[in-house]
Amino acid sequence: MSEKLNQLKEILGEVSDINHAASVLGWDQQVNLPPGGGEARGQQLATLGKIAHQKATSDEVGKLLDELKKEFAGVDSDDAAMIRVAARDYDKAVRVPSAFVAEQSIVTSAAFEAWVEAKGKSNFSLFQSHLEKVIGLVHKYVSFFPPADHPYDVLLDDYEPGMKTAEVQEIFDSLRPKQVELIKKISAVKQPKVDFLYKKYVEKKVWDFSEVIVTRFGYDFSRGRQDKAPHPFETSFSVDDVRITNRFEPDSPLATLFSGMHEAGHAMYEQGINPAYGRTPLAHGVSSAVHESQSRMWENLVGRSLPFCEHFFPEIKKAFPSQMEGVSAKAFYKAINKVNPSLIRVNADEATYNLHIMLRLELEIGMLTGKVAIKDLPEIWNAKMRDYLGIAPPDDAHGVLQDVHWSSGLFGYFPTYALGNIVSAQLWERINKEIKGLDEQIRKGKFDALLAWLRKNIHVYGRKYDPQDLIQKATGSRIDSAAYVRYLTKKYSDIYGL
Amino acid sequence: MSEKLNQLKEILGEVSDINHAASVLGWDQQVNLPPGGGEARGQQLATLGKIAHQKATSDEVGKLLDELKKEFAGVDSDDAAMIRVAARDYDKAVRVPSAFVAEQSIVTSAAFEAWVEAKGKSNFSLFQSHLEKVIGLVHKYVSFFPPADHPYDVLLDDYEPGMKTAEVQEIFDSLRPKQVELIKKISAVKQPKVDFLYKKYVEKKVWDFSEVIVTRFGYDFSRGRQDKAPHPFETSFSVDDVRITNRFEPDSPLATLFSGMHEAGHAMYEQGINPAYGRTPLAHGVSSAVHESQSRMWENLVGRSLPFCEHFFPEIKKAFPSQMEGVSAKAFYKAINKVNPSLIRVNADEATYNLHIMLRLELEIGMLTGKVAIKDLPEIWNAKMRDYLGIAPPDDAHGVLQDVHWSSGLFGYFPTYALGNIVSAQLWERINKEIKGLDEQIRKGKFDALLAWLRKNIHVYGRKYDPQDLIQKATGSRIDSAAYVRYLTKKYSDIYGL
Repeated sequence: MSEKLNQLKEILGEVSDINHAASVLGWDQQVNLPPGGGEARGQQLATLGKIAHQKATSDEVGKLLDELKKEFAGVDSDDAAMIRVAARDYDKAVRVPSAFVAEQSIVTSAAFEAWVEAKGKSNFSLFQSHLEKVIGLVHKYVSFFPPADHPYDVLLDDYEPGMKTAEVQEIFDSLRPKQVELIKKISAVKQPKVDFLYKKYVEKKVWDFSEVIVTRFGYDFSRGRQDKAPHPFETSFSVDDVRITNRFEPDSPLATLFSGMHEAGHAMYEQGINPAYGRTPLAHGVSSAVHESQSRMWENLVGRSLPFCEHFFPEIKKAFPSQMEGVSAKAFYKAINKVNPSLIRVNADEATYNLHIMLRLELEIGMLTGKVAIKDLPEIWNAKMRDYLGIAPPDDAHGVLQDVHWSSGLFGYFPTYALGNIVSAQLWERINKEIKGLDEQIRKGKFDALLAWLRKNIHVYGRKYDPQDLIQKATGSRIDSAAYVRYLTKKYSDIYGL
Repeated sequence: MSEKLNQLKEILGEVSDINHAASVLGWDQQVNLPPGGGEARGQQLATLGKIAHQKATSDEVGKLLDELKKEFAGVDSDDAAMIRVAARDYDKAVRVPSAFVAEQSIVTSAAFEAWVEAKGKSNFSLFQSHLEKVIGLVHKYVSFFPPADHPYDVLLDDYEPGMKTAEVQEIFDSLRPKQVELIKKISAVKQPKVDFLYKKYVEKKVWDFSEVIVTRFGYDFSRGRQDKAPHPFETSFSVDDVRITNRFEPDSPLATLFSGMHEAGHAMYEQGINPAYGRTPLAHGVSSAVHESQSRMWENLVGRSLPFCEHFFPEIKKAFPSQMEGVSAKAFYKAINKVNPSLIRVNADEATYNLHIMLRLELEIGMLTGKVAIKDLPEIWNAKMRDYLGIAPPDDAHGVLQDVHWSSGLFGYFPTYALGNIVSAQLWERINKEIKGLDEQIRKGKFDALLAWLRKNIHVYGRKYDPQDLIQKATGSRIDSAAYVRYLTKKYSDIYGL
């Protein structure tokens, strides 16, 4: 093997170790940190981030990559893919000065705190000046890169490499009228009973049941664990240590089951990456949309399916006999799929979810191009909610302040949630062509063929292929909303008798 | 302030951040790690260790220290102390090559995993080859330093700066006959009843009670937490995040209370260090013996005292009514102080504890000088147990495999446990001269004056003074076993009516 390749792998291996160490610290911050520990933890994370950035953007890495790109030109191998991905990461990272990264960290730390307070008091004006500063940094960030077709392309590319704003808009434009039409039809017919979902449940029983489900799905607890945190998330410290967090909300007690499936979907992706990619830039999910296609598949296409309910409902009934008294598997299935235009994205059903995302994309583009003034954001948010979902938030906390993303400088991320839904349906159609009787397998609690297919066609590759190429390879087409429309239409026609 | 001093603090601050990050990873390894996660974690710790070492031993640091030592010569200030301590750390660290540190980290990670398995299966042979590798590294480590009076001095100095093997041997030699004589006297008289300590206890109740006790002592849970781990320990990520671990052993259910007090004693030391020392080399306890003097004081001089029992026993009786039926505070006091030559160091009583240490010191010196072959360790261990304590372990788990230290490469550490006992008694004599009616305060559950004295005379200084100077300043003398002999003799004379 090339000596230069060894040298590159050595350095990138250390960068990977430092980043994974930072992930452990971040996980601990959300799961375990005592109240006093925050300030020192911020400092520790800043130092690790700085060192990882210095190592990853060193002249030595740049020189090795230049030479290796030549050496591996035209080669089709894992090493060649690693060099290509590493070079792309490097070219991006060197454009962003360390001083900017430090400034961003300070501005978003303050913005996050202001957001927490503003959301608590439901008062956007407490957050406005911070968001203006964040947008200023977003502009500055975009300016580090060569002019793109659309300035938003630069942001999108960080989460969905190669994806263009115009492509996303086209996909969303074709999807929006169909989802709106479907919601209109559904709202005209009788709604299922859901009261039993909101009775009193014992936290530990729900928690334990969420672990029963994800274990049966194939999430490997010998290479992971589930802990309590204020927000559910998945984080990976290596292919053999991929953890999920979850929460219990008494107002929505069974949400724990679905967020568990969602995060386990992310985690099974990371657990399934080729172990040979360990400590290289290939050892992660390839993009946010592909990642989300996995979490949403396990949460929705599996977890909110009739076969899933037919398999698990007897056990659910046994675990929660008083809550489920007189409820059938079919009634449970209908209840967990009730369509209800609502204010909060993370609680949205499958029929309305993408509309929340489209609203956010339009606002992000508006803020970036200056067409949306930050001070007008709550008003525009509320107007769009009325347009898209027919409801208006009573206050900022249930409207423009609901998501953490903007306070953390995450611009360009939201669209990948909807793209993930779309990709999940494309994969699902293909899987159901290749695995005969999948519904019947799920009804029997057998998920191994499904997981094996995902492992073989998605997980194992890590970042080896570009996301659209991977999707093409797995499904026969690039990202396209048709399968998702078919999926939604069929599902809700059955449930609502449309 | 000197520009050079700022530069030094900046670099050492980053070194501190990296070392604390490694501590978080180490804590997580013991408390949370899923079985699959060990290999990657070892790699991550190796990388952090390597980077911290490279930064701490850079020519830049060496140059800054040389210049600052001149600038601050003869100055008596925190900065001057920091420079002196940093220079000593630097002079040691530059002798140890990065490659060695990385190798050590990998070897000890594997050795730790092997030790866990070997202990679980009570089979020393599963650990032997790992320990041989560790000893190989210990030899190599010693070889990096100039020849000392005794090779073991090099190891001891890492935990007890300035202490010599000959001094320790002298202190131990003067103490051993007195402890052996005391044990002999005790074994000739009637033993207290202890059966109620070994009834069945509910783990959660004992755990919760251990948190009641350490909270009342003054351990600050808003800047710490207690988690379950195979071996109790304390670890610090900053002065505001100092964690302890504990365990529950059904065979010795109330041991949890005493190990909780012990680790909280360590933790209160770290929580009490001057916050202005944060991210500098001064922000740690000064030596292992001084650290142990704090843990043993809270565990034994407080936690195994009659006033402690008089205060807590009514609550203990309320928490464990069936176990404590017919038991008085005095009977409880006698029971928890029963002298009983036994197999496990961490469960040993105060009269026999130091003998366990003396055994380990002899074995460590034997392994280092080659007089003890690793393969013979279980046999020699068992023989010495018979010599010193008159009992022999039935298996390796209760003998040579009981302690984690050797698997982690901790050689030279054990003697500081006994030195800590000795220092705790010296401090206790002084404290009782300065705080009038301390027994009466403890009887009322008031520990604030005691903690305040320790804060003011020990904790706040961190590493500012050398250990023996700090002990001299606080007690009026250097390490001396006389106070400990007086303490033991008085305590056991009262209990056993000698």
